[in-house]
Amino acid sequence: MTSAERPPSVAGKVMAILEAFAPGGVRLSLTEICRRSGLPLATGHRLVGELTGGGFLERLPDGYRIGMRLWRIGAQASAATALRELALPHMEDLYEVTHENVQLAVVSDGKALYLERLRGPRSVPIVTRVAAELPLHATGVGKVLLAFAAGEFVEKVLAAGLTPHTPHTITEPDRLRVCLAEIRRTGYAVTHQEMTLGSCSVAAPVRDATGEVLAALSLVIRRNNADLRRLVPAVLTAARALSRDVAEHGGSAEWKDIT
Amino acid sequence: MTSAERPPSVAGKVMAILEAFAPGGVRLSLTEICRRSGLPLATGHRLVGELTGGGFLERLPDGYRIGMRLWRIGAQASAATALRELALPHMEDLYEVTHENVQLAVVSDGKALYLERLRGPRSVPIVTRVAAELPLHATGVGKVLLAFAAGEFVEKVLAAGLTPHTPHTITEPDRLRVCLAEIRRTGYAVTHQEMTLGSCSVAAPVRDATGEVLAALSLVIRRNNADLRRLVPAVLTAARALSRDVAEHGGSAEWKDIT
Repeated sequence: MTSAERPPSVAGKVMAILEAFAPGGVRLSLTEICRRSGLPLATGHRLVGELTGGGFLERLPDGYRIGMRLWRIGAQASAATALRELALPHMEDLYEVTHENVQLAVVSDGKALYLERLRGPRSVPIVTRVAAELPLHATGVGKVLLAFAAGEFVEKVLAAGLTPHTPHTITEPDRLRVCLAEIRRTGYAVTHQEMTLGSCSVAAPVRDATGEVLAALSLVIRRNNADLRRLVPAVLTAARALSRDVAEHGGSAEWKDIT
Repeated sequence: MTSAERPPSVAGKVMAILEAFAPGGVRLSLTEICRRSGLPLATGHRLVGELTGGGFLERLPDGYRIGMRLWRIGAQASAATALRELALPHMEDLYEVTHENVQLAVVSDGKALYLERLRGPRSVPIVTRVAAELPLHATGVGKVLLAFAAGEFVEKVLAAGLTPHTPHTITEPDRLRVCLAEIRRTGYAVTHQEMTLGSCSVAAPVRDATGEVLAALSLVIRRNNADLRRLVPAVLTAARALSRDVAEHGGSAEWKDIT
């Protein structure tokens, strides 16, 4: 929701204030909150005060951050949490077998939204964080999510332009289409330094009871860490085990709106 | 925030609606949301509609749940997330060495609030979930948090009454005081089936740069899983490593408000 679309209601203003924290500013000054949410300072001051009183925001010496109550409500009841709870044991299995970065992502707002990440002390440093969004065309999870998405959605992503993040990012729509067809054929994606130089990934789809792809699971490893393809069976196995758990825990309605 | 304390402002109503999901209802009907938040149906209907439009709530065939936007905002910027990010590698170490349940909790609203939990397929089933709250006096993490809390806070918890959860729960204030003194002396807590029959735990404090205890880390294992005390050094080691990371990543102001 951009400030231009924001309804003028108080509920809309409250959401705009909380949305100000979404781009990832860990803490924001009142001025910055008002700038991002498009609110006059007096209105912002009053609403931020109320949100702080309710524990939704937290006052620090140098600004505000999201409060524990809001974290708790979000962590308690959302589809993200439900999927994450199911995924964690399988992600731990994959981590324990490989000691590499393990990631879980869904599509959100045309990007890959990372729901969880396990990262060991010896794993390659990666750019993702929990709740971070990365481009679909340049990440392993993103390419899997794109490969199994509706054709019109894919065309919209292609039309929006394929920004290069490294010299290896696929930026030609036709090359990406070929790549997506290959992922549909093999059932997994392998990427080589397309998001970050030095990092490669193997990703596989997580399906619900109807067979629809609702998430992607991946391993991100160092470029020169031996043979990527050796890790494909492990990722596929974990993704299948998670898909089975998802199918058992709720019908498609449970997960439909997650993406 | 109970509905009786709720301010009559719209921001207060929005918070009351979101708070309705905090007790852990995964999905709520509009009627249930209005009942819990103390709002008239017409007001509730309008605000729930606005929150759904903004992605803060999500409409399912049988009710509403917390939406992905709210999860993302909470996961992105709160102190809970910051501490969890620092803790995860140490929790993974502990999990890998023991294959038991690993938990991280802070004090919130007079309870132990669980920020993270790693649970393997072979771990003992436990009652905690991420974002769940459990009583301080009956859990390992809770007893550690109590042991290092201010005296007046401890007295308030004692005065509120020590509810028995199993026949092993410590319910006499004097016995608990002795137990807390012992935890302060040794630097860790060991509990025996005080929250759940069949489960025991070892817990240790996580400190910030000033030495203040801001969280507790624990292992929860099956009662007959050999010697609990054998696990104490591992828990203490992980808690110390995490404390060092906490001290390095931000002053005490960063963490002060977490509890």
